[in-house]
Amino acid sequence: MRKTRISSAVVRRLPKYYRHLCDLERMGEEKISSQQLSEKTGFTASQIRQDLNHFGGFGQQGYGYRVGDLKKAITEIIGLDKSYKAVIVGYGNIGQAIHKYKRFDVKELDVVGIFDTKAGKKHGQEVKSVKELASFLKENPVDVAILAIPVEHAQEVADMLEEGMVRAIWNFAPTDIKVGFRIPIESVHLSESLYSLIFYSWNIDDYKEK
Amino acid sequence: MRKTRISSAVVRRLPKYYRHLCDLERMGEEKISSQQLSEKTGFTASQIRQDLNHFGGFGQQGYGYRVGDLKKAITEIIGLDKSYKAVIVGYGNIGQAIHKYKRFDVKELDVVGIFDTKAGKKHGQEVKSVKELASFLKENPVDVAILAIPVEHAQEVADMLEEGMVRAIWNFAPTDIKVGFRIPIESVHLSESLYSLIFYSWNIDDYKEK
Repeated sequence: MRKTRISSAVVRRLPKYYRHLCDLERMGEEKISSQQLSEKTGFTASQIRQDLNHFGGFGQQGYGYRVGDLKKAITEIIGLDKSYKAVIVGYGNIGQAIHKYKRFDVKELDVVGIFDTKAGKKHGQEVKSVKELASFLKENPVDVAILAIPVEHAQEVADMLEEGMVRAIWNFAPTDIKVGFRIPIESVHLSESLYSLIFYSWNIDDYKEK
Repeated sequence: MRKTRISSAVVRRLPKYYRHLCDLERMGEEKISSQQLSEKTGFTASQIRQDLNHFGGFGQQGYGYRVGDLKKAITEIIGLDKSYKAVIVGYGNIGQAIHKYKRFDVKELDVVGIFDTKAGKKHGQEVKSVKELASFLKENPVDVAILAIPVEHAQEVADMLEEGMVRAIWNFAPTDIKVGFRIPIESVHLSESLYSLIFYSWNIDDYKEK
């Protein structure tokens, strides 16, 4: 279905399209124009038409897009219709919250192992020692490693994850980990987000035109 | 100290400078050149010099920046040396994790109220009904509202927060909430981050040059 390689900028916009299409579906909307989608997303209508053209011409001149079809197509393009095996490394507040968070719309995100510097039972979960991670990964193929360990250990664990051939790293440690280009990393830097917000909270008068 | 209004792009980079300066301080480094900072941050050296010039000429030609002085300056520019009062609205997994997360480097982020659709004691914390939020905000000035409530209630709560004159909203609900321009919003969209990662996890061969 996909005609060309999708640019990284488009990849970044895909989840936003997906989210808005879910909202529309929930509201019972059956079709939407690129103009309406533009108002919702903040992207320009021509940008949207260009983006969605990548995926094989869902739009019809003068009609717009069918919400259900477009959502289904984007689901498949992202890969939300597949199952993924995950490990969580670092089972503190963030690791636990992600584990329990039920609102990810992926077919299955199956947590096959939880690791921490402290092994044992934690809130009813079996937590293995991070020392066992390397051997675990040799036996168990893992798609997504959720890295929620303190910054001091983050790179060392990332090296193990690379060695263990995980396919992607979702990083919550407040540092830029480095692995080979074969492994995509997405970082959620909570502190940075808070610090920008704090700056604006007391300087907003300088930014009124924002 | 600050000479001019800082552009939004610079505001976005400030927390990254801060993080790298903390790393350098931890490693015992006393000075750093813009070239070295460039290697760490990925920003160009001239970009860095330009950014840091905003804050009043810390760099010395041929010497670089004093890590401690620069960190202190950025701490003050962001406002990490001040105390902030916060409320948490939505005390599920994410709300609790943020509450317990101890690694924010702000002088004080004092959680003065926790609200949820279900009131009562939760993990030893007093949780008030979200119905009490409006009257609470009339009595208690709040700097940062942490919004971690399901998407169905997010805009309604955001309206209350605006009415209640909170100074900033840190949004974890997977939706784009809308408030007046006087209130800065920072959103952490966990699902979007995961979905981009999932896309790359099985398409990475197309992105090797990344």
